[in-house]
Amino acid sequence: MPYFDAASAAPLHPVARQALLAALDEGWADPARLYREGRRARLLLDAAREAAAQEVGCRPDELVFTPSGTRALHDGIAGALAGRRRVGRHLVVSAVEHSAVLHSAEALQADGGSVTEVAVDRAGRVGPGAFTAALRPDTALAVLQSANHEVGTEQPVAEVAGACRAADVPLLVDAAQSLGWGPVAGGWSLLTASAHKWGGPSGVGLLAVRKGVRFAARGPADERESGRAPGFPDLPAVVAAAASLRAVRQEAAAEGARLRALVERIRSRVPQLVPDVEVVGDPVRRLPHLVTFSCLYVDGETLLHALDRAGFSVSSGSSCTSSTLKPSHVLRAMGVLSEGNVRVSLPWGTPAEDVERFLEVLPATVRSVREQLGAPTGTAPASAGTTPERVVDSLGKRCPIPVIELAKVIGDVPVGGLITVLSDDEAARLDIPAWCAMRDQEYVGERPAERGVAYTVRRRA
Amino acid sequence: MPYFDAASAAPLHPVARQALLAALDEGWADPARLYREGRRARLLLDAAREAAAQEVGCRPDELVFTPSGTRALHDGIAGALAGRRRVGRHLVVSAVEHSAVLHSAEALQADGGSVTEVAVDRAGRVGPGAFTAALRPDTALAVLQSANHEVGTEQPVAEVAGACRAADVPLLVDAAQSLGWGPVAGGWSLLTASAHKWGGPSGVGLLAVRKGVRFAARGPADERESGRAPGFPDLPAVVAAAASLRAVRQEAAAEGARLRALVERIRSRVPQLVPDVEVVGDPVRRLPHLVTFSCLYVDGETLLHALDRAGFSVSSGSSCTSSTLKPSHVLRAMGVLSEGNVRVSLPWGTPAEDVERFLEVLPATVRSVREQLGAPTGTAPASAGTTPERVVDSLGKRCPIPVIELAKVIGDVPVGGLITVLSDDEAARLDIPAWCAMRDQEYVGERPAERGVAYTVRRRA
Repeated sequence: MPYFDAASAAPLHPVARQALLAALDEGWADPARLYREGRRARLLLDAAREAAAQEVGCRPDELVFTPSGTRALHDGIAGALAGRRRVGRHLVVSAVEHSAVLHSAEALQADGGSVTEVAVDRAGRVGPGAFTAALRPDTALAVLQSANHEVGTEQPVAEVAGACRAADVPLLVDAAQSLGWGPVAGGWSLLTASAHKWGGPSGVGLLAVRKGVRFAARGPADERESGRAPGFPDLPAVVAAAASLRAVRQEAAAEGARLRALVERIRSRVPQLVPDVEVVGDPVRRLPHLVTFSCLYVDGETLLHALDRAGFSVSSGSSCTSSTLKPSHVLRAMGVLSEGNVRVSLPWGTPAEDVERFLEVLPATVRSVREQLGAPTGTAPASAGTTPERVVDSLGKRCPIPVIELAKVIGDVPVGGLITVLSDDEAARLDIPAWCAMRDQEYVGERPAERGVAYTVRRRA
Repeated sequence: MPYFDAASAAPLHPVARQALLAALDEGWADPARLYREGRRARLLLDAAREAAAQEVGCRPDELVFTPSGTRALHDGIAGALAGRRRVGRHLVVSAVEHSAVLHSAEALQADGGSVTEVAVDRAGRVGPGAFTAALRPDTALAVLQSANHEVGTEQPVAEVAGACRAADVPLLVDAAQSLGWGPVAGGWSLLTASAHKWGGPSGVGLLAVRKGVRFAARGPADERESGRAPGFPDLPAVVAAAASLRAVRQEAAAEGARLRALVERIRSRVPQLVPDVEVVGDPVRRLPHLVTFSCLYVDGETLLHALDRAGFSVSSGSSCTSSTLKPSHVLRAMGVLSEGNVRVSLPWGTPAEDVERFLEVLPATVRSVREQLGAPTGTAPASAGTTPERVVDSLGKRCPIPVIELAKVIGDVPVGGLITVLSDDEAARLDIPAWCAMRDQEYVGERPAERGVAYTVRRRA
């Protein structure tokens, strides 16, 4: 059964499994203790730290193990901000960072600090110039991912790191999605990662803090992990994480090239096989194993369930698949279509046949979801239209219904006529302009309505 | 090879191992995802929560899994304090809590809050009356362990919980050492525990917060674990933790009685076999598997290494075995001898033969350490003594040397004469009075000296 959500969690790598089993026997004791079981645990911990540091590209004493990538980000950002509190309380992040970064930024704001979110282009890529421009004399920290977790776009880390260095601002790189593929180039100051993204076990994150970077760990004092990650370490998991990182790195070049070709095939074939699809993310500067596309007139959750029944596990940034009923902040920041969103992220070793089968199954699956929703077929409004202006009340209706309703009535107005859609669905803000771009209609704009928001479109063709 | 440090970390229980292996295959995916691997993970997580909650004695939705017992304490205390910030910023703890509690208390004080540490008796037990008296109108939280991790003494949790309830103060019970043996009785408000203390894997703590208890999680927002434990859950470890908790509980009554008898044998035999030993902790109201004693004129670290060479892994609260060069805060709070301290905590299934062999090996091991240190033999000063007053300069010398030097010269002064020991070793403050009590000499007191502290003893016999 093909599992295509490695960006969320990869299945355990065989080397990780083997290392974990060995360490369950050898590494359950407290590495801080003086007796033989403790010394054995300490040796394992030291060896794991050394191996992981080598792959990260830092000194072992710069690296600590945390309970997750999220904790590495929370504690890394908080510690770096506290270490530079005298400089200021300003934080620079890109708009497409992981939620753990954005939630850390919110916590800073709630505590009186300030945050600049640097915008990205339609490919999800931050401009080095824009990022540099956001640095201020009171900037305590800048955070940038090595590559985006939802659309795979690689960020210009080396250039941004250079700019940060010139401005004397430490840069934290969130390498969660890329570390298995290779070290992060450029002069970063802090780096975080998450083992279960590269086939390591869950329960292990990495936090590297370069010597000389001011860092003041928050929260109660603790002796473990240089005082930067409190609590008894999960040593078997740490050992497995380090062993599997080393193992995937040895395969990274070959496996990366292989998966890159499979992803390229998805990128090129999906728009040919499925009408009204937008493939998003940078087509070249991207992770090897990840591709994201959105399908017009499709309900993301229904599509996920349909693909699941067909045997494919994928994830989605559509609003209807999240508890918040908001489209993914990444898609929002990129300004791309969010409905019917599908992220495919291939685990190490995915057979080409699985990808081919996915391409076979996808068109009928999307078609069936569209039929269920009564989505319009064809691309152009057929009728001439006589009513100069129409209002469509889509209040209370969720993505993709407001867009479907818009598409259905666009032919009712003549060319030059206006359709206003009333919607209280967050996705409409993204998907109505995206629909206009795909259908070559003019998006006039939005304004607050008595209930919800009024989105206005002018028929152009 | 007998491992006698279960209170630090117990070897993995066979049920934990089995559950962990199964969950590595079934539970590596994100339980928040909609596809089959995610749903399977969610089922495992829900089942683990239900099983653990049943053993804790709470509702499943009151229980979250944290990355360690330390994190459960840090985050539980911080959340409970924040939830009651309007009431006040006063925290009550016992003086013998785990360092994670005391470090949390220090963090509160550093942040402008106040803390009352409730003293314990010589057995390490807190008085319910003293604890109750410490509660104030502005007390936000009280913390009490169910049983002490260093000396095994059970605390009067039910009585303290009643008093806290009457005062409308939530009580957090640190059940790390006892949860494997049984649920915590009494009306606690919050409870924490650590899986690797009962034979579960490392990487799992428990935090239970009763409905109705005000709680405001600190740090950046996160959707996992009711917002109380951020980051991707370590599901295989969580599953193993819950399964092993259930398993050890089924054996708890029988195994507890068996280990209690073994510990009782250590408690009674060690003072018969080894001269000048103080067995500490409550002899009756105690954990079944844990006993602690201190050996006069013995260097804890040397003793640990000697026992390790003889095949026994134990821990110690002596100052020379810690990086801080301070005796354990528990022994200090109890006011008992700290030198040559040995904690024996038997894992589930410890064979009686291992304990017998320990009793065989211990006397010669202690004797050999004492010989190495040139410790005095015999108990009473033989000589009559002619110098009325003597000063012993032990500056720069570590435990147990100041006490050995004191013992060597006590016979130089006549009965009624004074010996003053100059020492800059933290352990001397505890061990010189303890020596006086064991040797029936009079401890006069301490005063600051030009360097270190001057401890004065009057020869009584």
